[in-house]
Amino acid sequence: MSMIRLPRRTLAEAASTLERIAPTRPSQPIYAQLYLEAEGDSLILRASNGELDLELRVPAEVESGFKTLVPAHLFGQLVRSANAELAEFRLTPEGLTLEIGSFKTRLTTADAEAFPPLELGEGTEVELPADVLARALGRVRYAAANEEYRAIFRGIQLELGPERFRAVATDGFRLALYDASVQASEPLKRVVPARSADELVRLLKDGEEPLRLRFSEGRLGVEGPRFRMGLSLMEGTLPDYERVIPQSFVFEAVADAEALRQAIERVRVLADRMTQRIDLHFSPGRIELAAEGEYGQAREELEVATEGEGPLLAAFNAQYLGDALKGLKGPVRFRLSGPTTPSTLTGEEEPGYLAVVVPLRV
Amino acid sequence: MSMIRLPRRTLAEAASTLERIAPTRPSQPIYAQLYLEAEGDSLILRASNGELDLELRVPAEVESGFKTLVPAHLFGQLVRSANAELAEFRLTPEGLTLEIGSFKTRLTTADAEAFPPLELGEGTEVELPADVLARALGRVRYAAANEEYRAIFRGIQLELGPERFRAVATDGFRLALYDASVQASEPLKRVVPARSADELVRLLKDGEEPLRLRFSEGRLGVEGPRFRMGLSLMEGTLPDYERVIPQSFVFEAVADAEALRQAIERVRVLADRMTQRIDLHFSPGRIELAAEGEYGQAREELEVATEGEGPLLAAFNAQYLGDALKGLKGPVRFRLSGPTTPSTLTGEEEPGYLAVVVPLRV
Repeated sequence: MSMIRLPRRTLAEAASTLERIAPTRPSQPIYAQLYLEAEGDSLILRASNGELDLELRVPAEVESGFKTLVPAHLFGQLVRSANAELAEFRLTPEGLTLEIGSFKTRLTTADAEAFPPLELGEGTEVELPADVLARALGRVRYAAANEEYRAIFRGIQLELGPERFRAVATDGFRLALYDASVQASEPLKRVVPARSADELVRLLKDGEEPLRLRFSEGRLGVEGPRFRMGLSLMEGTLPDYERVIPQSFVFEAVADAEALRQAIERVRVLADRMTQRIDLHFSPGRIELAAEGEYGQAREELEVATEGEGPLLAAFNAQYLGDALKGLKGPVRFRLSGPTTPSTLTGEEEPGYLAVVVPLRV
Repeated sequence: MSMIRLPRRTLAEAASTLERIAPTRPSQPIYAQLYLEAEGDSLILRASNGELDLELRVPAEVESGFKTLVPAHLFGQLVRSANAELAEFRLTPEGLTLEIGSFKTRLTTADAEAFPPLELGEGTEVELPADVLARALGRVRYAAANEEYRAIFRGIQLELGPERFRAVATDGFRLALYDASVQASEPLKRVVPARSADELVRLLKDGEEPLRLRFSEGRLGVEGPRFRMGLSLMEGTLPDYERVIPQSFVFEAVADAEALRQAIERVRVLADRMTQRIDLHFSPGRIELAAEGEYGQAREELEVATEGEGPLLAAFNAQYLGDALKGLKGPVRFRLSGPTTPSTLTGEEEPGYLAVVVPLRV
C-alpha cells in the first residue's frame, strides 16, 4: 500500500494554485483532473488546461511512490475545508483515501498515464529573476487586446537581444514595453498568450528566485525552484512597432503618476461614454484636464513641471491614459510629439517602462 | 444663488448607500435620479426603486434651500473619486455645480417635483431597536425562496402579537423564525419582499438606535434617527406554518453550531450534486456524518451531548442544514421528531431563533 503524509496547509496552497489552471468547464475531461505523483521525498502535483501545464513540488513523507489522477476541484475543496494539521493519503484499489484528522474521504481515481506529460520544450535559454519577469509582464499586460481583433494582439511578445529582455504588448491603438537586462544570446521573438502570462504573473508573486526560461518554436518552459510551467506560444510575431514610438517631442510634463491618474479618473466620470474623451491642456507649469458628456462637464488643474513652449491641447481616451499610469510609482514623464501624433509616458523611477498613447483626432 | 457646503466623506457615504437603492437599469428613468433637498441645516438625499424609498439626512451648511434631481450613480462616482475634505454645491440655471478642492463639475439636473414622494404609510406602530430588527431579518432570510415558486415565499413575514415581534420565512421546504419581545398592540401579519428586507438589514448594520415601524395595508415605514425608509409590502400572508413545527422529539443532540456546520461543509463536497444528500447517524454521544456521490465518499464523526435512545439515521439536504446553522454562535440544539419527520434547530445562546428542516425521504 502506498502512503504519503504532508502538512495540510502546504497541500491546500498547492491545490489552490493548480485549481486556477484546471478549467471548471474543460474542453477535454482529462483537464479536470489533477495529477499526483509521490516520489522520493516529494509530492508532485500537476494541472493542465491544454495551453498551459503547471507542476508544483512540495515536500512530503513518502512511504512508497505512486501516480494517480483525482478530480482537481473536488480534491482542492476537500483539502481546504479540513482543519487538522496533517493530511495522509493512501492509494488503494478502491481509490485514493484521504484522512485529515477525523475527516475521511475516498476519491475515485483515474489512470495517471492518461495525463498529458509536462512539455517545457528545448531551445534558447535565459535566466531571469522572478520579480523582474513578473514586473515586465505585469506592466505591459493592459496594452494587449482582450478579445476580437487579430489574434497576435492578444499576446505579449517576449524578445531577447544582446543583454536585453523585453516584454511588449499592443492592441493596435496603444503600446507598452518593459526592458530588463539579461545575459542573452541569440536574438529571438516569441509571443505568449496574455491569459497564460496572467497565470505566470500570479504564480511569481514577489519572489526573487532565479528562473530559467526556455524558448522553443511552439513552447515556453519556465523553471524555478518551486515550480515548472510549460506554455504554448502563439504563431507569428507582432508587426513592427518601433516606428510608432516617437523620438522627438514638442512638450514634456513631469507629474506625480498617481495624482495624474486619479485626476483622470475623476474628470472622466462625466466624459462621453462612447469616446471616453478627455482633453489635456498643457501649458507652462500646469495641465488642465477637462471632459464633457451627456450629463455635464468636469475639470481639474494640476501643477506640474514642464519643458517646452505650449500651450498645447491633446485629447485622449481616458481609459487608455489611466491604464498606462496604473501602478506606476513616483513621477511620470509625459512627452508629446504634437497634438495628434503619439505621446509617450515613462516612469522616472522605473526606467524599463515605456507606454505609447495616441491622441484622439479632434 | 443656492449654495450648500458639507464634508465630502459624509456626502460620499450617503451617496453610496443610496446608490444601492437606485437601480442601474431602472424600470422608469426617474429611479436613476437622486433627489437632493437643502433645508434648514441639513441635506436630504433620497432614492427609490419603486418598491423601496430611502431617505437620508446629513448635516450641512445651507445658504439657501433648494430641491433638485441629479443622476444618482454619476453623482456618487464624482463625490467618491474626489479627495478634498469639503464639498460645495451651487444650483444655477445651467445645472448643479459641485466643487471639491480643485475638481469642478457641472451636472445636468431635473425637476425635483417629478420624484415620487416618500411614502411611509400610516397604521399600526411598534418600536424596535435597530440591532434586534437586523438580527431577526438576517437570521431568517435564507429560508425565503429566491426565485420561481409562489411569490409569497419570496418574502419575510413580520408578525405582531401581544409582546411579541416575529420574523418568519419559508420556501415550502424549510422554515426559519425569530422572536423578539416588543410592547405591541393589535395582532398583525405583513410580508416584506426579501430583497427589500436585505436592503433594510444592510442599512441597519449594528446600530442600537430605536426604530419606529409603521404597518399599513400596502406599506411598511421604518423611521430612525439617521433615515426613513418606505417599503412596498406583498399581498397576502404565508400559509399556516405552525403545524409543521414538531412539538415532541425522539432524540436530541447539542453540538457546537460552527463545528457542526464545518463538518457538514466538508462532507458535502462528495455528496450527490443533485440531492445534496448527507446522512446523519445519531447515537449516544456522537453524530457521524456521511455522504457519497459520483466521485467518492466522505465521512466524519463529532462527539456531542445527546438525549434519547438512538441510533437514528436521518438524511438531509446539506445546503439546507448548513444554511440553518450559518452564523449561529455557541451550542445548537438539534431535535429530531423521527427519521423522516421535521427536525428543529435552536441556538442555545440565541433563544429567539428556530429552524425547521425536513429529512429527505430515503
